[in-house]
Parts: sequence; C-alpha cells; structure tokens
Amino acid sequence: MTLHIIGLGLWNQKDISVRGLEIVRSCDAVYLEEYTSLLACSHSELEEFYGKEIILADRAHSEQKVNEIINLAKEKDVAFLVIGDPVSATTHMEIVRSCMEKKVSVSIVHNASIFSAIGITGLQPYKFGKTISIPFLERVPNLETPYHMIKQNLSIGTHTLCLLDIMVDNVAAETGGKVADDAQNTKFMTVPEGLAVLEDIESRLKEGVIKEDTFVVGVARLGHDDFVVKAGKLSVVKEFDFGGPLHSLVIPGKLHFSEEEMLQLWSDQK
Amino acid sequence: MTLHIIGLGLWNQKDISVRGLEIVRSCDAVYLEEYTSLLACSHSELEEFYGKEIILADRAHSEQKVNEIINLAKEKDVAFLVIGDPVSATTHMEIVRSCMEKKVSVSIVHNASIFSAIGITGLQPYKFGKTISIPFLERVPNLETPYHMIKQNLSIGTHTLCLLDIMVDNVAAETGGKVADDAQNTKFMTVPEGLAVLEDIESRLKEGVIKEDTFVVGVARLGHDDFVVKAGKLSVVKEFDFGGPLHSLVIPGKLHFSEEEMLQLWSDQK
Repeated sequence: MTLHIIGLGLWNQKDISVRGLEIVRSCDAVYLEEYTSLLACSHSELEEFYGKEIILADRAHSEQKVNEIINLAKEKDVAFLVIGDPVSATTHMEIVRSCMEKKVSVSIVHNASIFSAIGITGLQPYKFGKTISIPFLERVPNLETPYHMIKQNLSIGTHTLCLLDIMVDNVAAETGGKVADDAQNTKFMTVPEGLAVLEDIESRLKEGVIKEDTFVVGVARLGHDDFVVKAGKLSVVKEFDFGGPLHSLVIPGKLHFSEEEMLQLWSDQK
Repeated sequence: MTLHIIGLGLWNQKDISVRGLEIVRSCDAVYLEEYTSLLACSHSELEEFYGKEIILADRAHSEQKVNEIINLAKEKDVAFLVIGDPVSATTHMEIVRSCMEKKVSVSIVHNASIFSAIGITGLQPYKFGKTISIPFLERVPNLETPYHMIKQNLSIGTHTLCLLDIMVDNVAAETGGKVADDAQNTKFMTVPEGLAVLEDIESRLKEGVIKEDTFVVGVARLGHDDFVVKAGKLSVVKEFDFGGPLHSLVIPGKLHFSEEEMLQLWSDQK
C-alpha cells in the first residue's frame, strides 16, 4: 500500500518512464494533478494510453483531495501523476512530507523537468542561480521581486530562469473541467509579455538591469517536438512569435564560450 | 535519418521513457556513453531489456566516436544513450551543436536528472545557485574554486549542489570494458570524502564558510529505490554511512520553513 508520485515529463502521454507506466497500470486508483503546467495530450488520451481511469485532482479541491488520496494510500496502491519531476514543486514535496509524518509508504518516480531541460538552450544547468516566477502585473501591480533576484544572480554571474505565470480561470477550475477544457480557460504568459513585465519594473526602478539590448533567451514548449529557442537582444526576442504555451525566459549571466557558440545558433532562429 | 540523444534517467533500464524506448527499438544503431555516471544495471541487462545490441562509447574514444556517430546519423537512425537528461551535460550539448552546424537531424529525449531530483531533500530546486564539482585533492592539491563558489552562493542565500568526483581507471577505459567492469575500476567520491575536501580548503583559507556545525545535506543513489538523504551538522553527516555510489552533497543557503520541516525529517535518518 503505497502512494506513488509519478512524474509525467514535459510533452505527452509517452514521456512517462517504463517503470512509471508499470506502476500506474498496477495501481488501484490513479489521480492526475493538472493546474501548474500543460501536457500536449487530453485527459482521455492519457486514460487510453495508460489503460486506467484517471481522476482529476484540480486546484480548487487540492488540499482536500490530497488528504483523501493519502488516506486512500493507507489501504490501496495509489498513483498520483504530476507533470515534470514530482520533487521540483513545493506542493508535491509537502505531500511526501505528509506521508512520511503519517507513516504512509510513499515513492517517487522522477522524470524530466525544466530545471535540466533548459540546457537545450546551450546555457549550462550548473551555472543557473535562483529561478524566479514572473506574475501578470494585474495580480501584483507594484511587482519588484523578480527584478531584484535577476540583479542578485547577475552579481555572481549566474543565469536566471524565469517561469512565466499561468492564470487559471477559477470558474473552470471549480467546475472541474477536463484537461483540454482547462487549458482553454487558462491564460499563459508569453515570452514577450514576460519581457514587458520586466521592462515595466525597470521603468520604475531604473537600475539598468533590463535594457533594449539586454541579451535574453526565450523558449517555448521545451521537451516537445516543436520546441522553440530564440536568443538575441530583448528588442528582437520581444517581436518573435513563439507559438503556443508553455513559454519560459532566461536572462543569462556570464557566458562561457561554448554557451556563446550555442546561443549564436539559436540567435539565427527564424 | 536522425541522431536521437536519449536520456536514461537515474536508476536502471526501466527509467527510459516510453517514447525513448520506442525510438531505441526502431534505430539502426545504439550507442551508450558511460563514464560520468552510473546505472544500477549491467550492459547486458540494458541490451536485453531494450532488445538491441548496445555499443559502448567510452571516455578514451569519446571525441573520435562522437564524429563517427554523427557521420553515421547522416545515413541511419542512431540512438545515443546517456544517463540523466542529455542536455544537462556540456559534452552532449556539444554533440547537438555539432549536428546543427553539420545539418544532421538531431532530437533529444529528456529524462530525470539530479538538477530536479535533488528536490527530494526538501530543498527547493528554484533556490539553488551555481552547481559545483568537488574533485579529489590528489588531482588538484591547491583546490579553492568550490569554496569560493559556495561563498558566492551563500552571499545571495542560494543552496549549493556539489557533484562529487568520479575517477575512471584509465587502463579500464582504454580497453573498453563493460559497464559493470568499468564501475569496479572507478573511484567514486563519498559524501564524507567531499566534506573532507571542503574542510581541507577551509583549513587553508580560514574564511569560516565550512565549520564542524555547518548544516549540510548528503544524498546517495538519487532516483533509486534505496536512495538515502541525511541532513545535519557536518560533524554528524561526516560519520554517516551512505552506502554505494553515486553520492552528492548540498550546502544549503537561506532556508524557508517548509524546507526546514523536510530537512528535520531527513535529520532523523538512521
């Protein structure tokens, strides 16, 4: 009787590991948390491929559902599916901690996450500093924190990975739609929107961290077959069409020549 | 005709993704790079599970082999298997860049890597700074860099992930042994050995970064079923038996209370 927290990776139903798939198929109940990211497949495609009914544990009911799931795992084998690597999000580690405290057996199946996948840019994962989240300004009009953290990272030469906001339509979440429906009711910040937020903070703080010619790297749909990386001056990247979600942004720190060589190739991206 | 660079994750043959396995089975040739990490399965177990002959591209022949593999991928579908996530290591990104420059089709299948799996400690992956490598002192007797980088990370409150040295026996590598044989001829730095290196630097620089009561977190075999996390004062963690490789170390920066709560659980680890 174990709660198996299983990472699904970054693209679609086939990114689960062979081990993860075996466990899902052997479990008595399968839950999917779907509110902080996005797979390129529908709820029913997941169910069909995994051969299991999958219960959505959406945002509105999350804490309650989590307790329910942990209690269930005392008596049955339960799979809890999360996008990316389960241990990269604080909320999932809270579940692990809760299981450990309640002496409920818990196991993790790791998978790809943006923390290493960002390496596709050529920027070396071991040279990143603090990762920041950029929220829509309508949520935090006087936002400053991401700007200060970029400045801190730059002070020791590290790159800054910026995770861009996802705004879930509360009505959709509360009625518990399917994955595909949820996505339609969700607003994903684009790379140009993320840059505009940073420029807005710059216009207020005027410390020269974010300028028209600041070198930035935008990425979209990392881990998918149609992923995009575009590197260049902020003024250029801001005009680039990255296509559908998810988008993320990197403000590079000090570059090694091998990083520069790779970014040069991504600068030529049309 | 594509070079598929496929991540194998962190534990054994079953950590490959379903997509990755499908690609491996469809390829004309399959190579495995095995020199910077370690899977808990043998070469023949990999071959049996994947249903393919797997050619070892070991360290001594790496650059030559890489050119050979890229050339082969102009005419055939080739899989190049790497432990962890392919894009987390500079050497693999060099292969991607080389393919892009030579107009050879290249695709990546991401997988778990230590950059997110380290989240199992409860330390949040987005609060890590620069990742450092700690070499055996016999290679770099006057070593200082890791110490300075820990200090830099601490100056902005970020955690430091320390990757511990792997010393490959050159004779074994040159004769091209099997995975299991290589492992026997390879020396893996343990957590206590890594701490001893940091203490050695402290004894020379005396800047008070590493002390007997510095709070540290040691991990072993992340992603395996018998992974270990032990948190506590350096003097305690130094005496802990972590078992077999791979080991890694974290010097935490400023802790959030949710990080403290989780680390408390790992402090109780016997």
